[in-house]
Parts: sequence; C-alpha cells; structure tokens
Amino acid sequence: MSSVSQKIGGSLSKQSFIRKMFEEGNRLKALHGADKVFDFSLGNPNLEPPEELVSALRDLVNNPMPGMHGYMPNAGYPQTRAAVAAYLTEEQGVELQGDHVVMTVGAGGALNVVFKTLLDPGDEVLTPNPGFVEYNFYVDNHSGVCVHVPTTSTFDLDLDAIADGINAKTRVVLINSPNNPTGAVYSAETLAKLGDILRAKSREFGRTIYLLSDEPYRKIVYGAVEVPSILQAYENTILVTSYSKDLSLAGERIGYVAVNPAVPEVDLVMAGLILSNRILGFVNAPSLMQLAIARCQGMRVDISLYERNRDLLYTTLIEAGFTVPRPDGAFYLFPKAPIEDDVAFVGELAEKLVLVVPGSGFGGPGYFRIAYCQSPEVVDGSLPVFREIGKKYFG
Amino acid sequence: MSSVSQKIGGSLSKQSFIRKMFEEGNRLKALHGADKVFDFSLGNPNLEPPEELVSALRDLVNNPMPGMHGYMPNAGYPQTRAAVAAYLTEEQGVELQGDHVVMTVGAGGALNVVFKTLLDPGDEVLTPNPGFVEYNFYVDNHSGVCVHVPTTSTFDLDLDAIADGINAKTRVVLINSPNNPTGAVYSAETLAKLGDILRAKSREFGRTIYLLSDEPYRKIVYGAVEVPSILQAYENTILVTSYSKDLSLAGERIGYVAVNPAVPEVDLVMAGLILSNRILGFVNAPSLMQLAIARCQGMRVDISLYERNRDLLYTTLIEAGFTVPRPDGAFYLFPKAPIEDDVAFVGELAEKLVLVVPGSGFGGPGYFRIAYCQSPEVVDGSLPVFREIGKKYFG
Repeated sequence: MSSVSQKIGGSLSKQSFIRKMFEEGNRLKALHGADKVFDFSLGNPNLEPPEELVSALRDLVNNPMPGMHGYMPNAGYPQTRAAVAAYLTEEQGVELQGDHVVMTVGAGGALNVVFKTLLDPGDEVLTPNPGFVEYNFYVDNHSGVCVHVPTTSTFDLDLDAIADGINAKTRVVLINSPNNPTGAVYSAETLAKLGDILRAKSREFGRTIYLLSDEPYRKIVYGAVEVPSILQAYENTILVTSYSKDLSLAGERIGYVAVNPAVPEVDLVMAGLILSNRILGFVNAPSLMQLAIARCQGMRVDISLYERNRDLLYTTLIEAGFTVPRPDGAFYLFPKAPIEDDVAFVGELAEKLVLVVPGSGFGGPGYFRIAYCQSPEVVDGSLPVFREIGKKYFG
Repeated sequence: MSSVSQKIGGSLSKQSFIRKMFEEGNRLKALHGADKVFDFSLGNPNLEPPEELVSALRDLVNNPMPGMHGYMPNAGYPQTRAAVAAYLTEEQGVELQGDHVVMTVGAGGALNVVFKTLLDPGDEVLTPNPGFVEYNFYVDNHSGVCVHVPTTSTFDLDLDAIADGINAKTRVVLINSPNNPTGAVYSAETLAKLGDILRAKSREFGRTIYLLSDEPYRKIVYGAVEVPSILQAYENTILVTSYSKDLSLAGERIGYVAVNPAVPEVDLVMAGLILSNRILGFVNAPSLMQLAIARCQGMRVDISLYERNRDLLYTTLIEAGFTVPRPDGAFYLFPKAPIEDDVAFVGELAEKLVLVVPGSGFGGPGYFRIAYCQSPEVVDGSLPVFREIGKKYFG
C-alpha cells in the first residue's frame, strides 16, 4: 500500500516526464553554463514590479498600521475590495461594488474557490484546448469533470464546438484570454456570440451556465490590441485574475474573483465564494499585498521588453518556415512543431540548448510553447538555433 | 436549481447561526459603542509582530533583491526550507533537512495539502472533540471522513477512545496541542503512549497510520510549560504549523508542513505534498513572508499580555463558581456553561455585552470559548459580568 493517495500517486508518476525535462535543463546549465542555455520553459515574469508597487510596499512596511498583518474578513479588506470594484467598473463598463469582489490567493486560488462553490459531483467544465494544464487539476479537486473542445487553426474560440459540447451536466465554460499557451486574444464579437450561446443553452437546460474568465494576462497586450469587457458579453460571468503578471507579483499569491452583479442569487454566490475561500484553507488573501495592490489599481509593468521579444521571435520563426499565429497578448508563442512528435522535437531543441515545453503538456500535441518573458540575451541567443532548425526542416 | 453547489448551499444555511452572532455583535457595538462591548469571539492575535520580524520586512522591502516577488519552487525557497529544518532539528530533537519541509499558505493551507496527499475516498481522520471546527471541512474537501472521539474531563487525550476509534479505514490521527478551543497541552508521556497505539494499530491494519500534529500555538505556553517533541513520539508524524500566532502574522498566510524523515517512502510523500500545494491553487507560500520568517526562526511575540489575561480570567471564573481546567497554552479558555444549552447561555452573556462562542461550534456542547487574545481593557471590563453571572447560577 502506497504512502500517498492513489490519485496523487498516479499524478506523480505521470508527472515524471516534466520533471525529467526540468532535470535535463538543470543538467545542461551545469554542463554548459547557465548563460549558454536559452530557457523558455517557465512563465515566471522576469520584470521587477513597477515603482508604484515597490513604493506602496515600502510605505506600508516603514509606517505600519496596527493589525495590518492580522486577520481581516475572509473576503478581504473592505477598502481593497472597493478599490478593485471601482477599477473594474471602469475597465468592464459594468458597475460593481466591493461586495462583488473576493480577494484570493492568486488566480489559482480564485479558480479553486469558484469550482468549490459551483460544482456538484460530475458537473462539467468546458474549456478550449490548447489550454492551461492546471485547469484539469482544479476541476478534479472539486469532483468536477473537465471537458476539452478544440480551437480554430489560429487558436480562436471554436463557437460551434463549444455549443456542441454543452449538455445538461455543463455548469461552467472556462476561457483564458490572452491565452496561455497560445497568446490568443478573443474579440468582442466572438465573446458576444459566446454570450448568446450560453444564454440559449442555459434556457435549453434550465440551469445557469456560468462563463468563467481567467484573465491574468489582460494587461499584457501589444500595439493597439485591447481585451474586451467580459462582463458586458454575458450576464452570468465570473472573472478571476491575479497581479502575478501585470505587477510581476507571481510569488506573492494575490488575486481576486469578481462576479457580475446580474448573476442570479448573486448574494448567495458571493457568500459561497467567501465560505469556500475560508474552508479550502486559503482563509484570506495575504494581508500586506492586499493593502499594497489597493494603491496600484490599473498599473502594470513596462511590457516593451515582452513586445520586443515577441516581435523578434515571431519574425524569426516565420522567416525560418515555422507556422505560428502572431499572438496579441500574454508572453507565449505556440508554434507548430516541424515533426508530429512534439516531445521528440523539444528534445532536439534541448540538445541545441533551447528549452521549451511540448504542446502535449497543454492539450496541443504537435506544437510547442515558448515563454518569452525572458531577458533579451536569452531571446537573442536562441534566434540562430530557430533559424538552423528551420533550415533543416523547411529548407 | 440553486446558483451554488448543494454542499456549499447546505454549509451556508448551517452557518447562519454564527453569522447571526457576528451580526448581533456588530449591532451591539453600534448601539453601545465598541469600547462597551467585550468581544472574545475571534482568535485574531491583538499583539503586533515582534521587532525582529518588522525589521526583516523593512530590510527586504527597502533593499529589494531581483525576483524576490516572483515564483520560486512550489515547495518554497531552499534557504527558507533549510532555516526551518535547522530550527526544527533543535526544537524536535530529530534531524531534518530542508527537503523534509514544504512552505505553505498558513496551517490551514498545510492541512489541506496533507489531506489531499494522503486520503483516498472514505479514508478516516480521527480527531478529539472539542476541536477546531475547520478540520471537518478540510477533511471533507478531499473526500475523507472526519471521525471524532471524546477527550477526558480536563480535555486531555482519551487514549482508549482513540485506540477504539481506529479501524481499517483510519489514515490519520489529527491532534492540536496547545489546543483550540481548550488550551490543553499534551504531555510527553501521553504522546509516547499515543505513538505506541499508532504503531500497534498500523501493524494490525497493515497500513501506515499517520499522526498529524497541528501546532500553531506551540510557542504560546505559560510558566514552565513546554510542548514536547512530536517527532520523537512517533516516527510516522507530520507536523503542520504557521507563524500566525507566534509572530502575529495571521493575515499573511505563512506556515509549513514538516515530515518525519522516518516516514516510509518519505521522498514520495514530499513529492505528493509539493504537487498538492501546486494543484490546490496555493502554488507556493507568499514569497516576501518566506524570506522574512527565514530570519525569525524561534522568535515569538511577548506573550505576557496573554498570560496576564489567562490568569485574571481563570481566577475570576473559578472564584465565580465556573468549572474550567487551567489551560497551559494557546489563548483560549473553555469553561462549562452553567446551563445545558450553551447557545442560550452565550446569548445571555451577549445581553451583558460579553461576546464568546458556544462550545457546540467546536463539538463541545454545554461549554463556551473565551478567546483572550484581547486588550487588558476588554478582559478587565468583562470580569464583573462573569462574577455577576457566577453569582446568579452558582450562588
């Protein structure tokens, strides 16, 4: 009999490939020197938090208020919830109060809180592939079933596939725009059509089908691209996000859930989210960070480095013969691998000291993910390798 | 059809009593003035963090290191894990390495991570009553079943009841010393006997029965009392704790799991804990606080206020005729109510502007909990009320 549960034991044995990759990366860095290895495997922002956040933290810590590291209501500090609601009202064009916001331990915490609150055993969560692999765990944690539908060739939402995938067990449709791993940003027209589908399907099946929008990359978009309002697209929308990417606070675990005030029984839903935040052991979002981000609403890191990296890598990949849609946001590229076996291809890149992640890890076999939230040196150093590999496969 | 899951809906409707109490407290404070209401309902430490912690935070924030707010390994910063392991080696008298520690989002997060890692559906977690009500939720979150056994009249472990309660489904015995809500501290002799029982029962049922020790109050003990080593008492022990009480950081959500290196397949258990920390959406313990507490190992707030409060309340209650064991630790008293109906008695105290929690909320009907982590004014102001109530019931 194993020392751990069957489910965790099973997940651990499946995980061994990713761990092997990670160990292989460390081996290569030890062998060749870390500066000779071009590591695009992790989505850990390499930018420091903006000066406003650093100043807010300094001010809080140098001028402490009594109780500022203690418990507050499980939903978060009232002033933080109010600041978030005021900002969202402007961003989304839908009026929210602090009561519609629950501060959480990052977006990962927020998603678990939402699933705990909404899912009965066997309820389905429909989400497009390629997508963030953690979603499968988050849904399974709360006895739900994660169902995947394909996207289009440019990684846009396949609305017919979503409509066909919805059935009497569907409780949530989960989207992520700008997307990890593809960088796709869904348009207002697409989201409006999705809203129409969900409205019709909710009527058809006689239950509220929620749209859950995971938006940690909302502020990481390039050029004139804007991420449209998700609360305007559909009344039964729940928005989750974090400050991990826009304020480069990934390790601090600070984010929130916001609920469209139009959701039926919205007070019950909010009470459920607050209870779930407590009983899942999060209890509340970290207190100091709640106070800091309240002062930094709408701010973000300078994303010019990410845009530079995207442009260089995209142009190089296209010129080298790769097939890849130009991503409008996030800091990921998701090119088609030149051979069917993405795992083998990722191994070939690793031999040339370029580390990326196989698309199979995101429900997108035959592709690979480049996380370009890296220094210019890493990006520049990798370009000759992509050119060389392109020459080999595409001539 | 409800807008939330059946389970959350059910928990919310059961919760309404506690919410009503909370609202009643707010109503009384608004009516009579907050300084006229003596609120012992919440275990939120009223002491500020010690100067060492405040200085460490200041130093970190005023002299930021690159990446210090970013992701680190899911288990935590290696230097933090090593610092915790070195401290625990001394505290517990058992040698641990950083590899035996996973940093978590408080003790609440730690307990959920442990249950996710260990429990198969239907596995039982045995824990004494009265106890911390959240345990029931934490076990249920991960498809386990929480089974309660009684304690002795002085709230010590009832070892026969524990032995009788263990069966083939028992996976974990969960204890909490110093205890919430009773303040009891278990002796080394009692823990050694508990270890003997768990060893024998593990053999009898052919599976590892873990001892899970939840110790956030370990450093809150009075006089010459010491909390004995739990890792020495039993080899299959997992220790969880937080810095919420000893460093007064309850809102910051920083704690850890430490595993006895003697646990079978300890590397598998650690890998499972790290995976669970990730997939439950915690991802990692808040990064800045990890760096701060690494510099504050073994420190604690000055607990002389708590000791003063305990002594005054205990003496007053005893003199007034109440039955209550003198607690050695934590900041709780758990007296017997003078009438059987603890909820009614708590209502009577509230009319006299003293707010406490009915024992029913801790699986201890007929008792009530006083959380004395309050200012001297609150404690002093409550004493005449307890004297008056004592006179009424005990003459």
